[in-house]
Amino acid sequence: MNKKIVVALGRSAFGETFPEQKKNVKLAAKAIADITEEGYQVIITHSNGQQLGMVHSAMTEFSRMDSRYTVAPMSLCSAMSQGYIGYDLQNAIRTELLKRGLFRTVSTIITQVKVSPFDKAFSNPTKIIGRVMDAQEAAAEERKGNYVVETDGGYRRIVASPTPIDIYEIDAIRTLSDAGQVVIAAGGGGIPVLEQDTVLKGASAVIEKDLTAGKLAELTGADTLLFLTGTAKAARFFGTATEQTLSSVSLDEAKSYVSDGSFSTSGMLPKFTAAISFLESGAGKKVIITNLLSALDGIHEKTGTMIL
Amino acid sequence: MNKKIVVALGRSAFGETFPEQKKNVKLAAKAIADITEEGYQVIITHSNGQQLGMVHSAMTEFSRMDSRYTVAPMSLCSAMSQGYIGYDLQNAIRTELLKRGLFRTVSTIITQVKVSPFDKAFSNPTKIIGRVMDAQEAAAEERKGNYVVETDGGYRRIVASPTPIDIYEIDAIRTLSDAGQVVIAAGGGGIPVLEQDTVLKGASAVIEKDLTAGKLAELTGADTLLFLTGTAKAARFFGTATEQTLSSVSLDEAKSYVSDGSFSTSGMLPKFTAAISFLESGAGKKVIITNLLSALDGIHEKTGTMIL
Repeated sequence: MNKKIVVALGRSAFGETFPEQKKNVKLAAKAIADITEEGYQVIITHSNGQQLGMVHSAMTEFSRMDSRYTVAPMSLCSAMSQGYIGYDLQNAIRTELLKRGLFRTVSTIITQVKVSPFDKAFSNPTKIIGRVMDAQEAAAEERKGNYVVETDGGYRRIVASPTPIDIYEIDAIRTLSDAGQVVIAAGGGGIPVLEQDTVLKGASAVIEKDLTAGKLAELTGADTLLFLTGTAKAARFFGTATEQTLSSVSLDEAKSYVSDGSFSTSGMLPKFTAAISFLESGAGKKVIITNLLSALDGIHEKTGTMIL
Repeated sequence: MNKKIVVALGRSAFGETFPEQKKNVKLAAKAIADITEEGYQVIITHSNGQQLGMVHSAMTEFSRMDSRYTVAPMSLCSAMSQGYIGYDLQNAIRTELLKRGLFRTVSTIITQVKVSPFDKAFSNPTKIIGRVMDAQEAAAEERKGNYVVETDGGYRRIVASPTPIDIYEIDAIRTLSDAGQVVIAAGGGGIPVLEQDTVLKGASAVIEKDLTAGKLAELTGADTLLFLTGTAKAARFFGTATEQTLSSVSLDEAKSYVSDGSFSTSGMLPKFTAAISFLESGAGKKVIITNLLSALDGIHEKTGTMIL
C-alpha cells in the first residue's frame, strides 16, 4: 500500500499556449489518478522547456519596454514556470481525483537543485532557450558572456545543462508524500543553484528534467520511476534502419546502450542515464518508460520499456 | 515551544524590481529568523501587488507581440508571482537561518483560495492592476467585460477583491509546519478560485492579502498573527488632525474602529478586519501590527499595536 512512485511528465503533457496547457494537463491528471488508485504515493515532476522559453522571452521583451526592469535572471523565470505549471497541474489532478471519489491534497513545492560550478556543462552549453535573434542581438548577448548558436534561421541563446547533485527542499517533498499527499516538485529539472557558503546563487542553466527525476526518486526512496513521454516504448537507434524497440532491459544492457551510442541526447539518453543511477541506489527498484495514455498498462507491464 | 505564528509581509518587504526584491527580502529574512529563534513555528504569507502587476503587464505585452499566445489569465500570473517571490524569500530565509546555525527546510506552496461567485466585490471592483492604457485600449477592455478606471493620466484595469473563504492547500501547509519546517503560502492573498462542482476556476480578482493572512492563521490554529507593514504602530484617522497612535486595542475597540471610519481601505482596515475574525476564532490569540525592523520588539510587546 505504501509503494512510492516518481512520475516524470514530458513536454507532450503540456503543449505550448495557456489554453493548450490547461487542456493537456487533464490527460496527465488521468494518468496520475490511475496510479493513485493503484495505491501508490505519487510524486510528480515535469518538463518546462516551452514554458521557460516563453516566460524568459516575455520578461526579456518587457525589460526592453519598461526601463525600470532589468532582464529577469533565468532562475527567476524557472521559479515562475514552476508556479504556473504547478497551478494548472495540481488543479487538474485534484479534479480528476475528486471525480473518482478520492480526496487528496495536491500541492506544488518551489524547488531548487544543487549544481556544481565545476560542472563541465558550463563550458559546453547544450540547451537552446528563448526567441530567435538577429546577428546584432546575438553579438550583444555574446558580449554579455552568454553563449549563442546559429539555428532556426537566426541565432538563439544556448545554456548549460549541468548534472543535479542535491534537492534543497527534499524534506518538504518527503514530509508531504509520507503524509499521503500528492506532491509536484522540481519542475523543469528544478531551479539550478550554486552553493556559496550559506547562499544559494541562481545559475544561468537548465537542468535536464530526466536526471532530476532520477535524483528525486533516489532521495525520496521511491520504488518506481515512471517516465511518461511521447512513445509507448523506447527504442535503440531510433529513426534508423537498425531501430530496435525495447521491452525489457537489464541494468547491464542499459549501461552498454548508454555507452554504445544507442540513444540521442535529446531522446532516450538522459532517461537511461537517470535509470542507471536510480537502479544502483538500492535494491528492488524499477524504471518504466511509456507514453501518457499507457501509464497504467506500463505499471502492469503490459506495454512500455522496463529497466530492472 | 510549539507556539505557531503567521507572519504577513507587506509590499515594503519586496520593492519593485528584481534586484530590489532580492536585496529587500534579506531584511524580511532577518525578522523571520529572529522569530524562529524565539521558538515559533513560522508560516509566512506576503503581498504581491507590484509583482502581479509587472507579470501581468509583461505577459499582456508579450501576447501582443507573439501571436501564438493569448493574454495570460490573472490567476496564472498570480501563480507565477507566488513562484518567484517564494523562491527569493525561501532562499533568503534559508541563508539567514544557516548563518545562525539553524537548519530548517524552507519551502513555498502554490496556494489557491476559495472565493464566492456571489461576493459583492465582483460588482464593485477596487484593486487597480496592470499598466496605464489609452482611451481606445480601455474601451477594448470594457468590451471584454473588464472594469476600467481613469487614473494616472490614463486608464487602468481594476479588479474585484473578494473575501477569502477557504484555502485548498491548507493540509499541505499544516503538515509542513507541524513537521517543524518554515512554510511560505498563499502569496498575494492566494490565487482566487471559484468552485464549480469538482473544478476550481481561476477568478479575475485579487484577494486582499491581510484577509487571507487572517484565514491562514485561523485554519492553521496559530496563536499569533503578525502584520509586518510600513509603520511601527497603527493609527486611527491616519494623516489627519485627529490622528491617534494605537498601542493596545481590545477586540471591542477594534470592532468600533472598523465601523466608525477610523481606518482607510488601503491602510489599516483590512488588517483590523482580519484581526477581528482571527481573534473570534478561538481563545488566547493575539494580533500584532508593526514594521519589519521591529518584529521581535513587537512580539515582546515593546512596540507595535497589539490587538487582544
